[in-house]
Amino acid sequence: MKKKSLPLPLVYKLIEPGPVILLTTRSDGFDNIMTLSWHTMLDFAPPLIGCVISDQSHTFEIIKKSRSCVINIPTKQMIKTIIGCGNTSGRRVDKFEKFKLHKQEASVIDAPLIEECYANLECEVVDTKMVKHYDFFVLEVVKAWIDPKVKAPKTLHHRGNGLFMVAGSELKNFSKMK
Amino acid sequence: MKKKSLPLPLVYKLIEPGPVILLTTRSDGFDNIMTLSWHTMLDFAPPLIGCVISDQSHTFEIIKKSRSCVINIPTKQMIKTIIGCGNTSGRRVDKFEKFKLHKQEASVIDAPLIEECYANLECEVVDTKMVKHYDFFVLEVVKAWIDPKVKAPKTLHHRGNGLFMVAGSELKNFSKMK
Repeated sequence: MKKKSLPLPLVYKLIEPGPVILLTTRSDGFDNIMTLSWHTMLDFAPPLIGCVISDQSHTFEIIKKSRSCVINIPTKQMIKTIIGCGNTSGRRVDKFEKFKLHKQEASVIDAPLIEECYANLECEVVDTKMVKHYDFFVLEVVKAWIDPKVKAPKTLHHRGNGLFMVAGSELKNFSKMK
Repeated sequence: MKKKSLPLPLVYKLIEPGPVILLTTRSDGFDNIMTLSWHTMLDFAPPLIGCVISDQSHTFEIIKKSRSCVINIPTKQMIKTIIGCGNTSGRRVDKFEKFKLHKQEASVIDAPLIEECYANLECEVVDTKMVKHYDFFVLEVVKAWIDPKVKAPKTLHHRGNGLFMVAGSELKNFSKMK
């Protein structure tokens, strides 16, 4: 694996900008992938991420039992995979096979990492009190991986209805946000 | 006001890409502004937005009482305001005055809109059950305003530590995300 471990207190730098993510889960030997954008940081360290997983999705059924997942962050080269995974269901399709993605085994949890994504966050479900009302899961990132060669990732940001914004230029050297 | 009303089921198109926002609140005639990026859509219609408001902030004290706020979405021209509002406290500073911002009155709730922002979402707090553990407020958007001239907004997306990504190009004409 060419990726390196990312210190957990730095995970917010990946999630806070609002990228589309690919969430992977495992159940009885079957690996699934879901595209989603409804997520937010909840805390820095340990990093907590809140994430809406529709109760209509196959992933919802899996994660309620497995209580673990990987947040994989794709870039624009993967747009067809992102849309394809959003428009198919793991109830009928093996998405790893259909979209020719490569798996890597996680180090802490039991779900696959998508090798093609520049960052992978191994997560455990730590709070389900908001699931009933909002399909909202609280995830704790227990291990984070990043491709050190990717400096300004061209993440995708969904503007609805099949329209995506690609991450643009960076503005640096401003005083720190407190 | 040059802005027009945005149908509420379209609000997700503004929030889902993960822009930095300026949250405004009102208490006893004092108007405050807070910069934040930890938010997510929770539902389409009525649009529900979950939002982390640190219990260390002045806004936290205000919104617990007022139970309303405005989510104002700035673009890159406002970067100094975004950082300035993130690095000062309403306990000591009138941020509208300091950053020379113009107020517009909301139509439904009692908090100011920032005229310089291209979109403004009037919100009511509808659920505080996650405040104790995560400083997480559930907001319902009750009225939304948008500048119809802004087609591909150059929103800012925080990558941590004073580094911002500017919204880049758009990819269109892909099949719909379901």
